[in-house]
Amino acid sequence: MSTTSTFSSACFDRSCLWKGEVKSLRLNKQRSGNRVYVGGRCAALSPKSFRVWNSKQEQDKEVRVALLGASGYTGAEIIRLLANHPFFGISVMTADRNAGKSIESVFPHFISHKDLPVLVSTNDADFSDVDAVFCCLPHGTTQEIIKGLPKRLKVVDLSADFRLRNITEYEQWYGQPHRAPDLQEEAVYGLTEVLRDEIKNARLVANPGCYPTSIQLPLIPLIKANLIESGNIIIDAKSGVSGAGRGAKVGNLYTELTEGIMSYGLTNHRHVPEIEQGLSDAAHSKITVSFTPHLMPMSRGMQSTIYVEMAPGTTIEDLYHQLKNSYEDEEFVKILDKGVVPRTHAVRGSNYCYINVFPDRISGRAIIVSVIDNLMKGASGQALQNLNIMMGFPENTGLTYLPLFP
Amino acid sequence: MSTTSTFSSACFDRSCLWKGEVKSLRLNKQRSGNRVYVGGRCAALSPKSFRVWNSKQEQDKEVRVALLGASGYTGAEIIRLLANHPFFGISVMTADRNAGKSIESVFPHFISHKDLPVLVSTNDADFSDVDAVFCCLPHGTTQEIIKGLPKRLKVVDLSADFRLRNITEYEQWYGQPHRAPDLQEEAVYGLTEVLRDEIKNARLVANPGCYPTSIQLPLIPLIKANLIESGNIIIDAKSGVSGAGRGAKVGNLYTELTEGIMSYGLTNHRHVPEIEQGLSDAAHSKITVSFTPHLMPMSRGMQSTIYVEMAPGTTIEDLYHQLKNSYEDEEFVKILDKGVVPRTHAVRGSNYCYINVFPDRISGRAIIVSVIDNLMKGASGQALQNLNIMMGFPENTGLTYLPLFP
Amino acid sequence: MSTTSTFSSACFDRSCLWKGEVKSLRLNKQRSGNRVYVGGRCAALSPKSFRVWNSKQEQDKEVRVALLGASGYTGAEIIRLLANHPFFGISVMTADRNAGKSIESVFPHFISHKDLPVLVSTNDADFSDVDAVFCCLPHGTTQEIIKGLPKRLKVVDLSADFRLRNITEYEQWYGQPHRAPDLQEEAVYGLTEVLRDEIKNARLVANPGCYPTSIQLPLIPLIKANLIESGNIIIDAKSGVSGAGRGAKVGNLYTELTEGIMSYGLTNHRHVPEIEQGLSDAAHSKITVSFTPHLMPMSRGMQSTIYVEMAPGTTIEDLYHQLKNSYEDEEFVKILDKGVVPRTHAVRGSNYCYINVFPDRISGRAIIVSVIDNLMKGASGQALQNLNIMMGFPENTGLTYLPLFP
Amino acid sequence: MSTTSTFSSACFDRSCLWKGEVKSLRLNKQRSGNRVYVGGRCAALSPKSFRVWNSKQEQDKEVRVALLGASGYTGAEIIRLLANHPFFGISVMTADRNAGKSIESVFPHFISHKDLPVLVSTNDADFSDVDAVFCCLPHGTTQEIIKGLPKRLKVVDLSADFRLRNITEYEQWYGQPHRAPDLQEEAVYGLTEVLRDEIKNARLVANPGCYPTSIQLPLIPLIKANLIESGNIIIDAKSGVSGAGRGAKVGNLYTELTEGIMSYGLTNHRHVPEIEQGLSDAAHSKITVSFTPHLMPMSRGMQSTIYVEMAPGTTIEDLYHQLKNSYEDEEFVKILDKGVVPRTHAVRGSNYCYINVFPDRISGRAIIVSVIDNLMKGASGQALQNLNIMMGFPENTGLTYLPLFP
Repeated sequence: MSTTSTFSSACFDRSCLWKGEVKSLRLNKQRSGNRVYVGGRCAALSPKSFRVWNSKQEQDKEVRVALLGASGYTGAEIIRLLANHPFFGISVMTADRNAGKSIESVFPHFISHKDLPVLVSTNDADFSDVDAVFCCLPHGTTQEIIKGLPKRLKVVDLSADFRLRNITEYEQWYGQPHRAPDLQEEAVYGLTEVLRDEIKNARLVANPGCYPTSIQLPLIPLIKANLIESGNIIIDAKSGVSGAGRGAKVGNLYTELTEGIMSYGLTNHRHVPEIEQGLSDAAHSKITVSFTPHLMPMSRGMQSTIYVEMAPGTTIEDLYHQLKNSYEDEEFVKILDKGVVPRTHAVRGSNYCYINVFPDRISGRAIIVSVIDNLMKGASGQALQNLNIMMGFPENTGLTYLPLFP
Repeated sequence: MSTTSTFSSACFDRSCLWKGEVKSLRLNKQRSGNRVYVGGRCAALSPKSFRVWNSKQEQDKEVRVALLGASGYTGAEIIRLLANHPFFGISVMTADRNAGKSIESVFPHFISHKDLPVLVSTNDADFSDVDAVFCCLPHGTTQEIIKGLPKRLKVVDLSADFRLRNITEYEQWYGQPHRAPDLQEEAVYGLTEVLRDEIKNARLVANPGCYPTSIQLPLIPLIKANLIESGNIIIDAKSGVSGAGRGAKVGNLYTELTEGIMSYGLTNHRHVPEIEQGLSDAAHSKITVSFTPHLMPMSRGMQSTIYVEMAPGTTIEDLYHQLKNSYEDEEFVKILDKGVVPRTHAVRGSNYCYINVFPDRISGRAIIVSVIDNLMKGASGQALQNLNIMMGFPENTGLTYLPLFP
Repeated sequence: MSTTSTFSSACFDRSCLWKGEVKSLRLNKQRSGNRVYVGGRCAALSPKSFRVWNSKQEQDKEVRVALLGASGYTGAEIIRLLANHPFFGISVMTADRNAGKSIESVFPHFISHKDLPVLVSTNDADFSDVDAVFCCLPHGTTQEIIKGLPKRLKVVDLSADFRLRNITEYEQWYGQPHRAPDLQEEAVYGLTEVLRDEIKNARLVANPGCYPTSIQLPLIPLIKANLIESGNIIIDAKSGVSGAGRGAKVGNLYTELTEGIMSYGLTNHRHVPEIEQGLSDAAHSKITVSFTPHLMPMSRGMQSTIYVEMAPGTTIEDLYHQLKNSYEDEEFVKILDKGVVPRTHAVRGSNYCYINVFPDRISGRAIIVSVIDNLMKGASGQALQNLNIMMGFPENTGLTYLPLFP
Repeated sequence: MSTTSTFSSACFDRSCLWKGEVKSLRLNKQRSGNRVYVGGRCAALSPKSFRVWNSKQEQDKEVRVALLGASGYTGAEIIRLLANHPFFGISVMTADRNAGKSIESVFPHFISHKDLPVLVSTNDADFSDVDAVFCCLPHGTTQEIIKGLPKRLKVVDLSADFRLRNITEYEQWYGQPHRAPDLQEEAVYGLTEVLRDEIKNARLVANPGCYPTSIQLPLIPLIKANLIESGNIIIDAKSGVSGAGRGAKVGNLYTELTEGIMSYGLTNHRHVPEIEQGLSDAAHSKITVSFTPHLMPMSRGMQSTIYVEMAPGTTIEDLYHQLKNSYEDEEFVKILDKGVVPRTHAVRGSNYCYINVFPDRISGRAIIVSVIDNLMKGASGQALQNLNIMMGFPENTGLTYLPLFP
């Protein structure tokens, strides 16, 4: 049996799985007695087992989740993930325009799960039996709604409403004053691998945008280590269509998008201030980036091709090792072997971010390629990763899906 | 907590999950003591928990799997599914042309799983440490290879080599004599919902083709109940491109297939004898069908639109109820609510088969729509469902993925 | 030079090109003197030459076209075709919601043609300088608008409003009484190859729907020749998404349609009465068909796979020859060589309809495959073919585009 | 009639159409008498009319074309274009592996054109009756074959074999010594808008690669005018799959490419030396670029997103006006209105190159977007444009197709 390969994501001796726990001694202690070794490898693979091991205590741990905005794509992705989550159950699902309907009438791929709650309007939602909230509502309205939630609830907000610390900047980019500046101060930015410790104790997490996730993950370690010039960062990003949401717009029709590509939001995409905020934090000085998003004829997936100037004396090897070291213990962020090009196909449907760095023809420059599934690590996957941490569970719980290919 | 919705697929009071067990008293007994109720619902959700509950006994149950033909799409799908399977581990993976390589060099979406075994040629595979085999090799060569395997191994063969009971018919359709007629006699046809009891005790299962699965599931109950005329069954089937495999053929290039459709194999597709064998068995008389497959610009998914003549006095209601009753306890075969049209999007990446029946404009006729993911219920998903049963595990183990949409 | 291959569509010794003329002696005479032979083949290839040959007379022939509903896909296709049409120029383009805008702001692929007229609302359109109208408006409103047009205008209507002779049937399928029954009586159904003579003298042509075109072209000759049973015609049709128009609907988003297929309009698609009207006319008795349309992940293209029962004593050869003979002189309807499967890729962007017939496994049955580009022969291409005829030009004028592949 | 809009591409008072002629006085004179005015606008729209006007002389002008490598995508595109070309006919088509077959058996979208020559092997081709050659063969073998052609033939070579003036560089990038250095010296690089005068008198034109076309068209005027820094040009290019040809490779299967994107050829794509050669020529100094191509899930289309640093004191306005002025008389290269983003959908199937320039967030930088159809302006369209010029015809002859959308 010892020759049997098993999948590393499930093994506790990989720090990745237990990262949440390693850094959370309380949790670690509570559970350490429950691991069972089978044939020389860890058997406590499934987080679901937890509930069984310490049945009474664990029972009390079950998390009742409310999902606000269930009829969009990020909401649907949350449902898909929670369907196999061992600790989280869905108590409430809201969808204002579809209130009173079943989720299967909105998303036929949930037909198999007849026991999901009926959709209600957000105003009618009863939070008395809820422990945590995923908020998948549009920016703007989100602030008021989260402001109105009971304060005991843990909240992961997938909108842009709490991502920008500077509310003046928010107003400037979103065209309206921020209506919950107090909450903004409380909110923790949910780029998991970078701010894990803060997320652990957060009540309100502002889940990052998809572009900012794919861009900050490779750049922050390089900027912190002073390996790249901060004034010459050029980002050519490519996104699948689901990033545009499920709104009925001519521009997002099948006929308008299949078999062609286009740049959009040139110089003024709303993810810019979020990207610059994160990079500037890492640099301890204001960074302005060149950022050009492109719409691709694919539903999911995102690639950021990032062109950087290396600091004097820095080599590609330096960049590679910095990234490799930064993420060596991470389950979801992987630096590929040298020369291997990350591609979106290889992460579709999964929570992985694949990164690699390549020498440029222009001396002193480097090219970074970073890919994610925009609905997973770029939205709902990272949101679940965050709520797992906030609730004290291993952060990969319910997230060990392999990519779907082809 | 009692208001928390949880997903039905995980609940033991749904007969579907436990179908394998319900019909396997031996297993049922062994495990019945391990169920734990949490807040009024079953908690023993994850099959992985089994290993924990009875650690020593269960430990001995771990199944070491060899995957023959790992570099094709059905092989890759087996890997994806086993990555999160609680009882099955992969010991051996073969791929003759890619022997010596890592699987991630063949399929970059497995980069995250560095501990998968290195690919070896089938001849070099060591089966001494193997309990069961998924055989994803091309028809023709498969017979000899399976003939050469140790007889103690359980085998699920995804090729066409053991599907046809009549080896004369095999020779006629595949252009070569059958080289393992004894094994053919032993083989059990793996249409799970129809032949579950035989599969339970089988050593060699001939996993059904994708078209035959999508077609037989709706038709067999109707034929058995004498509700449709057997001489006038017209099947217009549509398949995603992955059904054509991963061979380098001009006809399967992106440029040749995107943005267009076509019929192929008119009157002589090799799935015809398999379909007719299954339907004829159900009818106890020879059935000849009209079967026209079409190639669609999509990777996965299959729809069979089936036009039938109802038996005298039969109504659409009769058909609907027959199907509903036949599959009411099944987890993976669902008859949708009246009027709801099954669509391939709603099953992509999952093991479901969705079926519905509609009245035709021509009096006395009906239209049946049946959809599956050709790589899941049409190939690797059903193969795992079968091996689960053969090894005594609940048949949905490792198969509770929800569809990936969008 | 005699070895030089030239393209048959341009040669006057092919009856197809000159079909319009052959049947229009007046025109034929007028122009016969202008043909010039070059190296043994006809040189008067380009219809544009006409204007040059008889400059004064031809000058008076220029047709000033109004295009109503220019911001939909069929309207855009009309513009594409007229851009290279030698006799037709566009005087007026209407688009109510986009009135005041340039067409390039609505359809960026017209950026190169800055001199197209500005869009006006239909009410504001000035028809004083117009000879003919393409009406690409939605059904329902079309009737009133066409009723209000000057009677001297030739009109090709691409909506469904004048296709059904029986206005009771119209009301039944479209949910409102017909508001222009007099015009309905005047309208000629524009299935060019079948009703060419009537179209020649028509003032108002009801251009056929896409499904009805692809279905009637193969079936009408077979029904007229009594080669197939009229009570057992089963049509499984597949359409590209452009058939659904350019309206902003969630169901037509890229994310909702890519990588999947689905049946829709089961038993009640509005093209049914149009199909049955045409087939019943051919049969001189009421025909009811089984018709199931499917939506494909492709912009353009349509295939009808038609399952028929042959009349007693009839063979596949009989069907093939009947079709071959019926269309041997046609430029746009081609019966392929025996065994060659028509595919939508081979007609994309062109006005061709490709047809073939295949034996079925069920004795006495046959399978007919018919493909068109739904926006061309299924809409705007056929509309132009009809207006060419109505205005006395060769019917292929401006329609000799080859398919765009890949 | 004066209100009738006609399409500018057809009007002789637009310098673009007649560019070939304007610069070719001999031709201009020969034909000037034949223009006929109709209603105040030019009527001599169709190049085909030429043959009619001066029938005897023009007859002698007919160009008999040999197409070498007809079974690839660029070959097929040549056929599509010549099908409606008024002066060019196809005498010979070669395809070594398909010798003896009809072109319709290789490309079913040519079924309508039964009179195309049968495919022969290149060795068996008879050039005695040929005036000009399109060579669509792979690089490497092309040199020898063109070396062996009769010297009287005009040749447009679509391979890479004669693009690089420096044969040492050729050997370095293509891994084999150049076998026809004399021909290399004779060859003229066929970037039409830049080298039109040289092309006019060329016997052998090396047709540019697709990436180099989309990149050089915007950059050369800016470099020549010293408006951008030459050391910091970053090109992120995106191509449709047809650029990879029709070879049977696993990497180009539908299943491998749909719904995902990827970078490839990082730092070492073979178009790099061609791009740098052209830009260096413009700068009169060696330019090294950053060039990263990406493969898109679409058949046709190419976008180059180019990030440049402006020269000191230069503004976006300067760039815009330089481009606008450089191409104001061109038919196929268009600078869009300010703020309008070029997209590949708007050029698909056409010979246009659309360009625009945008301010970057990083001060002093600009973003240039350039789109083409890689098979048209990026290959066969530009090849025809060049042969038109070489043979003395208006360069847009047979190239006035509008894009196919949707």
